[in-house]
Amino acid sequence: MKIHNYSAGPCILPKSVMEKAAESVVNYQNTGLSIVEMSHRSKEFVAVMEKAVALVRELLHVPLDYEVLFLQGGASMQFYMSALNLLPLNGSAAYINTGTWSSKAIKEAKLLGRIDEVASSKDKNFSYIPKDYAVSQEVSYLHYTTNNTIFGTQFKELPKTNARLVCDMSSDIMSKAIDVTKYDLIYAGAQKNIGPAGATLVIVKKDVLGHTGRVIPSMLDYQIHIEKESMFNTPPCFSIYTAMLTMEWLKELGGVTEIEQRNKAKAELLYQEIDTNPLFRGTAAIDDRSVMNPTFVLEDASLNDSFLHASIDAGISGIKGHRSVGGFRASMYNALELESVQVLVDVMKEFERTRG
Amino acid sequence: MKIHNYSAGPCILPKSVMEKAAESVVNYQNTGLSIVEMSHRSKEFVAVMEKAVALVRELLHVPLDYEVLFLQGGASMQFYMSALNLLPLNGSAAYINTGTWSSKAIKEAKLLGRIDEVASSKDKNFSYIPKDYAVSQEVSYLHYTTNNTIFGTQFKELPKTNARLVCDMSSDIMSKAIDVTKYDLIYAGAQKNIGPAGATLVIVKKDVLGHTGRVIPSMLDYQIHIEKESMFNTPPCFSIYTAMLTMEWLKELGGVTEIEQRNKAKAELLYQEIDTNPLFRGTAAIDDRSVMNPTFVLEDASLNDSFLHASIDAGISGIKGHRSVGGFRASMYNALELESVQVLVDVMKEFERTRG
Repeated sequence: MKIHNYSAGPCILPKSVMEKAAESVVNYQNTGLSIVEMSHRSKEFVAVMEKAVALVRELLHVPLDYEVLFLQGGASMQFYMSALNLLPLNGSAAYINTGTWSSKAIKEAKLLGRIDEVASSKDKNFSYIPKDYAVSQEVSYLHYTTNNTIFGTQFKELPKTNARLVCDMSSDIMSKAIDVTKYDLIYAGAQKNIGPAGATLVIVKKDVLGHTGRVIPSMLDYQIHIEKESMFNTPPCFSIYTAMLTMEWLKELGGVTEIEQRNKAKAELLYQEIDTNPLFRGTAAIDDRSVMNPTFVLEDASLNDSFLHASIDAGISGIKGHRSVGGFRASMYNALELESVQVLVDVMKEFERTRG
Repeated sequence: MKIHNYSAGPCILPKSVMEKAAESVVNYQNTGLSIVEMSHRSKEFVAVMEKAVALVRELLHVPLDYEVLFLQGGASMQFYMSALNLLPLNGSAAYINTGTWSSKAIKEAKLLGRIDEVASSKDKNFSYIPKDYAVSQEVSYLHYTTNNTIFGTQFKELPKTNARLVCDMSSDIMSKAIDVTKYDLIYAGAQKNIGPAGATLVIVKKDVLGHTGRVIPSMLDYQIHIEKESMFNTPPCFSIYTAMLTMEWLKELGGVTEIEQRNKAKAELLYQEIDTNPLFRGTAAIDDRSVMNPTFVLEDASLNDSFLHASIDAGISGIKGHRSVGGFRASMYNALELESVQVLVDVMKEFERTRG
């Protein structure tokens, strides 16, 4: 039976990418060596790293005054590292709190300076994106999380502010077109639309670095990683290689504008069912609904287990909601096909027919 | 032609492990999902993490008052993180400097306290392991690097000191039996004998944590990773899975005592040729020679290129020496077979016959 993988991350990746990656784990391009057995300084792996960086630049139209890095530690390390590199000693920054990940980012940044939580949707269990707030002219930057995997909300436009923007895009980068020039720093754990867990993408405007007055440990210093082209130490080779393959797949398919249309079509299909099927209710404010991670509940929570089993019987994997929201979460990353969404919608329709 | 992979790291891994890993990248245990597409919270991946930790405990006889962690960032991140977690505010620590990696560890630790470089072999291009030095009773710990990949030296016994020991074992952990109880903290990048790059092993004595008086960022705090069982954030799933497979291979083969004998036999074979072949000369002090990374030069450096080509013609990959030493380095990690060492020795013998 075909498995429809709705996992929130690590998550579905293209089947063709998995097949190529598997082949390279045994014998990379007929070298007789595995991609994971090669020196990261070999001409083969250096070419992989260069191509991965070039694909990020091409797919997201990254301007030349920005650097593209592949690091380790995930967004969780970036919560601290971004502030360490951008927040001056005695400086301040503004943060929008839209859920678990923003809260963690705020916690780590507070170790380094004055953090002003300018807006929060905590009052309604993070079910919406705050829109009215003022950002002081004094702050070094405004930080926000573009898409909130747990609560199923997503920024649909840029925050209205003159402040420089720092952004955690872990769960929606590469899912749609973005304007990189609007940001000083973008970071993202790879394990949604970029590739396997273990790599972290950073896109940083070069001229914002080096102004904090802090002494920064080498591994936490963007400038050192820039100078060493993401090879200050051994990089997570397999994750970067497979990210490169995934970006090649995305490019062949038509890039971020094409995938944006496909992702919208998937989200429309599912949200329409959530809105019209009387058994279900979406949990996020309609204007702020995530294209990546629709969250929904059964009006009658006592039916949760039977709906979950009905979906499992149809080959659907990973739709149990996060404990903070309950119900269900259907993460629909780039590699999930419209056909898989149709399977879920059909299960919902059938559930209404038999249980409604 | 069979490739004999002498790469210094990332490096050779067992062929059977590469085959199993490749299979799991396409379809993990018949789940219909790739190992890299699964949630790290899935019962399947949690079982992988638990087994990887259990294998470290079993293979190295890790006592119950020690914790085993799989983190990210490599030894380079541990240079800073180890000091951040073990060096109290206003405290001091002793470091032995045996080359590039020790020097980097010292540099990062100096950001956090008084670092006493109690011994160094820099005077002779790090070609030996210092043996006479005094460690103050005041230091929180003594740090050293067990094996020096670049310079081809290795500690053959524990430093003579009462100080607590902190150790970078990146390049010889799992290559021989060790007594974990002698150390407060052991760390190692995975990409030699543990598995693919991207994971970092930490073995830490629990009761030495929490006494620094420092506020530690979450991702750099061993206590948080212990509490979350290496799942504070998304772990590098593929690297940990493949490390688990590699440790299973090692266990089946007879564990660290068996591999220690095999590694010794490989080193003896190569060093004997280096010592008896008049064209070649070892660069490390004989008593301190590394079992993992023999380094050697041609007496006549003008023959370097032709020897390199002769070795490549025999299927030998990755023996060009590091620029800090020149000549050649034959890294002989666990998965390299004696047969591959014989091929290299035969090339050396033949080179003497034709060029000697």
